[in-house]
Amino acid sequence: MAERVHPSEVRTVTCVGAGVIGGGWAAYFLARGYRVLAWDPAPDAETRLRHLVDAAWPALTEIGLADGAGVDNLEVAATLAQAVDGTDFVQESAPEKLDLKQQLLADIDQAAAPHVVISSSTSGYGMTEMQVKCVHAERTVVGHPFNPPYLIPLVEVVGGASTSAEVVAWTSEFFRHAGKSVITMDREVPGFIANRLQEALWREALHMVAEGEATVEQIDQAITDGPGLRWPVQGPCLTFHLAGGQGGMAHMLDHFGPSLLSPWTRLVAAELTPELRDAMVEGCEREAAGRSIDELVAERDRGVIAVLRALGKA
Amino acid sequence: MAERVHPSEVRTVTCVGAGVIGGGWAAYFLARGYRVLAWDPAPDAETRLRHLVDAAWPALTEIGLADGAGVDNLEVAATLAQAVDGTDFVQESAPEKLDLKQQLLADIDQAAAPHVVISSSTSGYGMTEMQVKCVHAERTVVGHPFNPPYLIPLVEVVGGASTSAEVVAWTSEFFRHAGKSVITMDREVPGFIANRLQEALWREALHMVAEGEATVEQIDQAITDGPGLRWPVQGPCLTFHLAGGQGGMAHMLDHFGPSLLSPWTRLVAAELTPELRDAMVEGCEREAAGRSIDELVAERDRGVIAVLRALGKA
Repeated sequence: MAERVHPSEVRTVTCVGAGVIGGGWAAYFLARGYRVLAWDPAPDAETRLRHLVDAAWPALTEIGLADGAGVDNLEVAATLAQAVDGTDFVQESAPEKLDLKQQLLADIDQAAAPHVVISSSTSGYGMTEMQVKCVHAERTVVGHPFNPPYLIPLVEVVGGASTSAEVVAWTSEFFRHAGKSVITMDREVPGFIANRLQEALWREALHMVAEGEATVEQIDQAITDGPGLRWPVQGPCLTFHLAGGQGGMAHMLDHFGPSLLSPWTRLVAAELTPELRDAMVEGCEREAAGRSIDELVAERDRGVIAVLRALGKA
Repeated sequence: MAERVHPSEVRTVTCVGAGVIGGGWAAYFLARGYRVLAWDPAPDAETRLRHLVDAAWPALTEIGLADGAGVDNLEVAATLAQAVDGTDFVQESAPEKLDLKQQLLADIDQAAAPHVVISSSTSGYGMTEMQVKCVHAERTVVGHPFNPPYLIPLVEVVGGASTSAEVVAWTSEFFRHAGKSVITMDREVPGFIANRLQEALWREALHMVAEGEATVEQIDQAITDGPGLRWPVQGPCLTFHLAGGQGGMAHMLDHFGPSLLSPWTRLVAAELTPELRDAMVEGCEREAAGRSIDELVAERDRGVIAVLRALGKA
């Protein structure tokens, strides 16, 4: 029986699904120099896939293609069996319906050699509930991208109850080797991490529009011209680490902790226990990795200026 | 009695408060060519203010100074009366304590000529509760910046119950003339707009750390390498307008509306009434202003690539 190749030895990737995410994955893998086998049950799958890849290609070319990369390395297969024949990795990006995902993963599981890792782009389901019909469930894992997958680096990797730890590690290493920014989660949480953060913001936005507190345009402007300019540079925790002045996150939480009780969002805050306070402070200190507040401020300013300039806002 | 100058005729600005926000405002106004009078009751106020301005100056110089701009245009006054003498506008950036703000605004109100607009940097209080001790409360208004005020364009302008509509309009126009991105709110909402959105995300982050669902580093990486790369380019509403494919926000809400019931954040969603659905769709169409989904996708990709490159992530 063939063995799983090392993550750095992957040459052929199968993309199942010809929607925006599946097509985006295909374009990304092609740009990174992989051979891509694709399949979707829709009759116009090949047309849609090639359109999606062609639409993404100028952006990918501008960023820079890997040696040997090209749209000619895309083969749209007529059957799932052909699409997984000889593949080293499968990325499933089907519509977000649980029963459909369960059956499709079972079909891929049956068709693909047992050593091949099968990753799902699902944005909401846990692999535990999706892998139930798979015989070789140990090689099924979530690899959740962000739209567009060919530009946004983040991939969240998390296994289900039957997924082997080795597959979670292999998948994380494969995505990293393919140029992605990988978060490996050690437990399933609905929505993973980034979607939970994004969804909290989104739901507050919907409440505000529903109540007439803000318009759609005001919400978008509030983010694009406000905190959204800091977030590609420093995440929300490091941002507040700097909001505390020289005292950092410790000062921020000790002095502004009471504001967690303010009605500044409809989401009730976590209780600021000493344990949570210390976890936030220690996490920021690990992230700062010895950089002083002044150094982090200078880095933030350089980053924000670069973003402002890049977008013609400076 | 002197009259209020036109927003474009403002020459002298008073900054009250020598903290990170007050110092940031002073640096910004200096860079835009204003004469800045500053005051803070702390004995080391001048040292702190000049340090803050000096720290921000390289960034402001890099972005580009207005004609005649210079740190020499900063005068740190010995008294509040001197700081408002002959000023055209006052920006108050004192610590976030209600009784302190109420008394300080009353002191500024007593010291400054009645035609001078007094704006507060408060991040949480409404002007209605802050202006209670002012005689000329009609000229007090919130002008809420984001840290650092010398780089982040957003200012949220909103009046209190006693603020005149003309002052809200004047303040909005002044900040726009000074180069800011202004949101004028027609009603007071705790936390205004951007802080509510940011706070919802932040509270979900704190919950996740408290429950061991994610680390501080994972939360920051999830934003900086994920949705945070889109948000300086397109806000959360326009982002989801594109997530709906060619059908835009209408398709997104009609097909993914049920996901609002998913436990993807601890914040319970607004009910997706037909009115809310239409408000979101119409808002996105107004923002799109005739640009097709394909055109918006291309704009997003150009923006994200520019941000990735600017930050050395591409």
